[in-house]
Amino acid sequence: MRIGLLGCGNVGSAFFSMVTDGALSVAARTGISLEIGKVAVRDPSRFRGGLESHSRLVERLVADPWSVVQDEEIEIVVELIGGVEPARSLVLSALEAGKPVVTANKELVAACHAELLAAAEGAGVDFLYEASVAGAIPLVRLLKDSLAGERISRIMGIVNGTTNYILTRMSEEGIGYAAALAEAQALGYAEAEPSADVEGFDAAAKAAILAGIAFDSLVVSSDVYREGITSVGASDIDFAKRLGYEVKLLAIAEREGNDGPVSVRVHPAMVPSSHPLASVRDSFNPAFVQAEAAGELMVYGRGAGGRPTASAVLGDVIEAAHHLREQSRPRPTKRRAASLKPISELRARYYLSLEVLDRPGVLAAVAAVFGTCGVSIRSMEQVGLMDEARLVFITHTALEADLQATIAGLERLDSVERITCLLRLVDSEEPE
Amino acid sequence: MRIGLLGCGNVGSAFFSMVTDGALSVAARTGISLEIGKVAVRDPSRFRGGLESHSRLVERLVADPWSVVQDEEIEIVVELIGGVEPARSLVLSALEAGKPVVTANKELVAACHAELLAAAEGAGVDFLYEASVAGAIPLVRLLKDSLAGERISRIMGIVNGTTNYILTRMSEEGIGYAAALAEAQALGYAEAEPSADVEGFDAAAKAAILAGIAFDSLVVSSDVYREGITSVGASDIDFAKRLGYEVKLLAIAEREGNDGPVSVRVHPAMVPSSHPLASVRDSFNPAFVQAEAAGELMVYGRGAGGRPTASAVLGDVIEAAHHLREQSRPRPTKRRAASLKPISELRARYYLSLEVLDRPGVLAAVAAVFGTCGVSIRSMEQVGLMDEARLVFITHTALEADLQATIAGLERLDSVERITCLLRLVDSEEPE
Repeated sequence: MRIGLLGCGNVGSAFFSMVTDGALSVAARTGISLEIGKVAVRDPSRFRGGLESHSRLVERLVADPWSVVQDEEIEIVVELIGGVEPARSLVLSALEAGKPVVTANKELVAACHAELLAAAEGAGVDFLYEASVAGAIPLVRLLKDSLAGERISRIMGIVNGTTNYILTRMSEEGIGYAAALAEAQALGYAEAEPSADVEGFDAAAKAAILAGIAFDSLVVSSDVYREGITSVGASDIDFAKRLGYEVKLLAIAEREGNDGPVSVRVHPAMVPSSHPLASVRDSFNPAFVQAEAAGELMVYGRGAGGRPTASAVLGDVIEAAHHLREQSRPRPTKRRAASLKPISELRARYYLSLEVLDRPGVLAAVAAVFGTCGVSIRSMEQVGLMDEARLVFITHTALEADLQATIAGLERLDSVERITCLLRLVDSEEPE
Repeated sequence: MRIGLLGCGNVGSAFFSMVTDGALSVAARTGISLEIGKVAVRDPSRFRGGLESHSRLVERLVADPWSVVQDEEIEIVVELIGGVEPARSLVLSALEAGKPVVTANKELVAACHAELLAAAEGAGVDFLYEASVAGAIPLVRLLKDSLAGERISRIMGIVNGTTNYILTRMSEEGIGYAAALAEAQALGYAEAEPSADVEGFDAAAKAAILAGIAFDSLVVSSDVYREGITSVGASDIDFAKRLGYEVKLLAIAEREGNDGPVSVRVHPAMVPSSHPLASVRDSFNPAFVQAEAAGELMVYGRGAGGRPTASAVLGDVIEAAHHLREQSRPRPTKRRAASLKPISELRARYYLSLEVLDRPGVLAAVAAVFGTCGVSIRSMEQVGLMDEARLVFITHTALEADLQATIAGLERLDSVERITCLLRLVDSEEPE
């Protein structure tokens, strides 16, 4: 089976090595003989031979990705370019030519899965994307195959390693967000322009993909309610820890009942320290899936990095190769328009911190806003900060719309300088 | 797709309900319409109608399993009888008739997988057995599909819920093995004749199945080195806890290098309290998989029980139905005779407790035996017990053969009453 590779960064070069160095053992194990025919990169002149495996790569480089997709000898296309275009056009062209496509490109899958799956079904070939969510962790296959007959009610996971690194450093070292981000950038864990990670866009794309599979629904990135971690401060993490919580950026997809609306959201959350999610450090990705008969399942592993992601790509390539050889059509996917539950209908407990002027009567005015909006306060703590003071509230379970009305009301008070941080509490086992 | 069900206990009745109550949503999700045609049970007269779903079950009952396998309208056979015969003959007959078979029967898979997989390949149909290992946890699909192109070096997990319940109770309540077993029996978690669980036979069958898939090898239950938990005492667990360990019955399969010998074993082990395996309680099953490119993966969930196991069966049935409709042949499996590494070649740290007469010179005599056999002692503790004393040793890393020679030498000493417990330490991060 001749593979055409589009893109050759970290994942691509790890995949190239796995296939070229491991071809014999893959053939022995699966009966499928894999070979990489062409590798499209923007600038082949930047690659040079050297090690034998590297020389074999250089021989296969081309600058034009269309020459890979249109090559009649290429039977399977692996797309690792990233972004929507030209990846989308290349993938559609490959599928229409009857070539199965394997991708690790989350932006593409999150934005265009309906179109791409339809093209794949039309051509009767696979479009596989295990590597687009959570690296080596077999979350897509779990949802799509193992739980094919199940009713899934919830997926909750940490799906972005960069933000998890930043939050881990803030929690363990007591440093602020800016210092932790700078450290992550210095180590190459975060981009110079970090918003895709820290604003939650990356996690939102993955949440959309997972919600789409789990609930057979057409969810795209822009359907996902999204908050990043930029407003989380050292004092918020410190306060959470004293209450027995860690702050994590979570991707959550839920559906009520059999056909209820789907809630998909990404936001920082307070997770009880005893919860398995709380102790996950750095680039490890854990995900919980709640299914009706199977109960709670967890998968955990390296969610990013060249080799773990290449491992997931290879698993999909072998599946596609097997189906191609058997001329078996992919399993149909019946996705429907999703009825989305707006964030305003969420019910949760909330952490809210605000800076207020330190003068008499402020607390009464603030508490009155909570009361008027129907949000019940469970606990409050005041920390003096020179002329100002910080007030930190934990609420009882409240409706998000009421909480947002509370925030709007607080912002109108003269004595409130600013709302510094909002966190939702997850999975607390404490009684209300 | 008409399914024939062999056996209708906990798993069978949960599966029947999932299929009959969920047929519409499965069809909507997968395009596959499932229906249960016949259900073979030993004594149909013991089942009575009542609830509507139960009445639908009673209508389908037959006493003769062969009438299910030979029924031309039955397209897929689900085998939930358990044990090797008559399950083996029924499964072979179904496969030879071109019907895919899904099973949750670990004894059958562990004892006969080579024969059954050959029959399935010969007939070009699926033989699927995700439910035979660790209930709802997608461990078989992870090893077989997601990691199809990977080099797996290690699998380690807790795969028996009964022994984990007993060890959890012993650890949390400080009660002895006999009391914890009696409690498990009273609650129905352990059989009246508990040896399949407590002697490690159940875990050994699962270890054989996992080692077979992970290392493409022909491993059967009797190849698995096996020790149960019957010699683990309250004092051993207490001692382990004071050192920062929990005692767990582990199933471990390892292979050195690419084609090295395979070590497959089941034994109680001391696991550091900080290790995720240490905190797993009762019937939850965790498994770690170490793969070359993917790194460490963990899957976790309900490893037993009717509904979780039925969920895994249904995932396999949908896969088999899809392949049947597409007339696609199963992926070939290339299994080779396993070169097994004997337990005597294991290198580990050991916990050894022994009862000795409380008289001068005993410790010197005991220590001399360790020294003569080349086993280095890391720590020793003596606890007085009236006329007798208990000595507890932790060794440095030693060869199992040397440790066994030490035990034989100790048993020859007049002052040693008996060796009470041997545990292997796992994954300690402490320096040697």
